Formats: sequence, structure tokens, C-alpha cells
Amino acid sequence: MKILLVGASGTLGSAVAQALDARGHELVTVGRGSGDVRLDVSDPQAVGRLYERVTGLDAVAVAGGEAVFKPLDALSGDDFTATLRTKALSQIELVRQGARHLAPNGSFTLVTGILSEEPVAGGAAASAANGAVEAFVRAAAIELAPRRVNAVSPTLLTESVEAYGDIFAGYEPVPAASAAAAYVRSVEGRHTGRVYRVGF
Amino acid sequence: MKILLVGASGTLGSAVAQALDARGHELVTVGRGSGDVRLDVSDPQAVGRLYERVTGLDAVAVAGGEAVFKPLDALSGDDFTATLRTKALSQIELVRQGARHLAPNGSFTLVTGILSEEPVAGGAAASAANGAVEAFVRAAAIELAPRRVNAVSPTLLTESVEAYGDIFAGYEPVPAASAAAAYVRSVEGRHTGRVYRVGF
Repeated sequence: MKILLVGASGTLGSAVAQALDARGHELVTVGRGSGDVRLDVSDPQAVGRLYERVTGLDAVAVAGGEAVFKPLDALSGDDFTATLRTKALSQIELVRQGARHLAPNGSFTLVTGILSEEPVAGGAAASAANGAVEAFVRAAAIELAPRRVNAVSPTLLTESVEAYGDIFAGYEPVPAASAAAAYVRSVEGRHTGRVYRVGF
Repeated sequence: MKILLVGASGTLGSAVAQALDARGHELVTVGRGSGDVRLDVSDPQAVGRLYERVTGLDAVAVAGGEAVFKPLDALSGDDFTATLRTKALSQIELVRQGARHLAPNGSFTLVTGILSEEPVAGGAAASAANGAVEAFVRAAAIELAPRRVNAVSPTLLTESVEAYGDIFAGYEPVPAASAAAAYVRSVEGRHTGRVYRVGF
């Protein structure tokens, strides 16, 4: 399948790229600073240009998205707005605009994370964005059929322990490869409207 | 207790006002076009003015919020942005700015709805907003303590069957008074980080 992979250069994204490549899929990678197509998917117009430029897609997978982490009393209204834009609206936009470009049996695989269900201090904006994406996935699934949409929600990744281990103290990590396996399951399987929890 | 009630004039809001009043609480009602204080809580600066003006609050309860309902392929990026603002960010803002104004044993009670879990066609933006609020509630709870935050998530209300019954075909309705009881439970109880499902 021809698969658009957003955020392919990140910790999770590289593992997803490797897993999809190992399954023989053709990847078109997208990132702000690297990849086959370089643009910022949090800009809705850039998403429009992306789908004009990359055609014949069977699947779209997202493996990245930024969130502001700060104690709740330090998070500003703008921090919440920005996090919803970069982590939720950007993914919603990829589905919304992508639906008419994708093959009829095509799929979207979005990314959330354990914070929608198991919060940590400082993660309220990320939690809200993840919650928005997960509920959107359940809702969009019933309208996108026969196209499908799922989300992968990993816990802390083993590869990210050094960077985020303190924030996620006591969260047992899973290898990025395990989260990547859920992407393969979403892309090649027949599920829709699912949130694949990985490692929790 | 002195309770700020946002959206007191709506179907759910009137039932909540009645239930809180019956429990002997003092209400300050807020709405765009009616209530003791008239302003638009989807404007963050208006929320700031609200908390400057109404002091000595023990609790904040929200019983209203607008969402755009359209088929997914007709929902624009702006519809999603607007719905996240009026239904999610406005409630987050009431908590974020209200935290430092509320009594130490005070509580926030937000509103979501069945669409975060049981979607209907046309409701993808509302689902996303509800999902954001529910995940935010779980996350904010751990940082707000001893202050508390919960959400009430009703199914279709009996009083709204005429207006929304077609969209929610086969969703068994509950009286607004049942949803209002969950507000009393949130305000007077000790729970935090809870989403009270009502009628499903």
C-alpha cells in the first residue's frame, strides 16, 4: 500500500516507518524539517497542498504531534489552544481533508497516548488533545465507512525514558516497536473506530 | 454554597438551577443573553472579568455549550475549531482561571455528553469537544486538589427529544432532572476526576 506517514523522523515515527517498510508498504514521509514532503500539518492549508501533491494514497498514519507540558496553574489559554491545534486539530484536518483523497478501502491511523486516561501532573493540555482525538476517531469511523480510522495510544516508550521518565514516574515503558505493531494492525486490519492501547 | 452556574437558561441548565436551589445553594447565573451576569464564556477575557466580578465562590457548574452538527464531509476546519472553542476551551478556561478564585474545598462541574462514547452521524465535532473535556477533567483533577473537578455526561434529555430525537434515534432519553442530580452529587460530594454518565 502507498502510505503517508506524518512525523516519520520522531522516536515513534521511525519505528512505525520501519514496521510498515518491513511489511512491504511504500511510504511517503512528511515532517516539518525532514521527510519526502516538508510542511507543517498544523496549518490546514498546508494539509490541502499535501493532498494535492501526494495522490493515490491507501493510508495515512500520524506518529507525531506536539503538546505543551506545564503545571496546570502555569498553562495559559494559549497553551491549551496551541496544543489542541498541533495535537488534535491537525490530525482531525488530515482525516477531514484526506477522506475524499483516500482509496475506498483506505485507513487513517492517528496517535494519542496514555494521558487521555492516566494523567500526569503537567499534562492537562496533552490529555485534552488526546481525549479530543480519541472521541473524534470513534465518531468519524461511523461516517467514513468504508474508509477506516483508528488511533494508537502508547504508554511511555522505552526509547523516551531518558527524556520523559521523570514526568511518567512508575509508568512501565514499552518499546516503540510494540506501538508500531499497532499501526500495522490498524493499516492492514479491518477495525475502525478503535483506540489501540499499547502497554497499558 | 455560592455557586456560579453557566448556561442556566437552557434545558439542562434550568433543571440544574432548580436542583441546586432545592438544596439551598445560592446561585449566580451566567449566560450570553440572560442571567445575573451576561457575557460569553467562550471569550477568555470575559471569563477573567467574570471572576473579578463574582467573588467568594464555592463552586462553578457549567450546563451549556454549543457545537456545530453537520455530516463529517460538510464540517469545515473552522467548524471544528469553533466547536472546540465553545464547548471545550471555554470550560477549560473556566477551570484554569477559576482555580485561584475558588474556595479550597470548591469544585468545578463541567458538561459533556454521550457523544464522546456513543457517536451519531453529524456529531464528530461535538464528540471531539466532549472527549477533550473528559480527558481534561481526569488530568486537571490531580493538579487541582483539594479543589475538585468532574463532568456530567448525559444521554439525550427527555425535554430535548423533539429537537434532537431524530439525530439520536434509538437513544433512550432521561429527564433533565436526572442529569441535574449528578450536578448535586458532584458539587456536594467528594469525588474528583469523575465523568458521571447519566442514562447510559
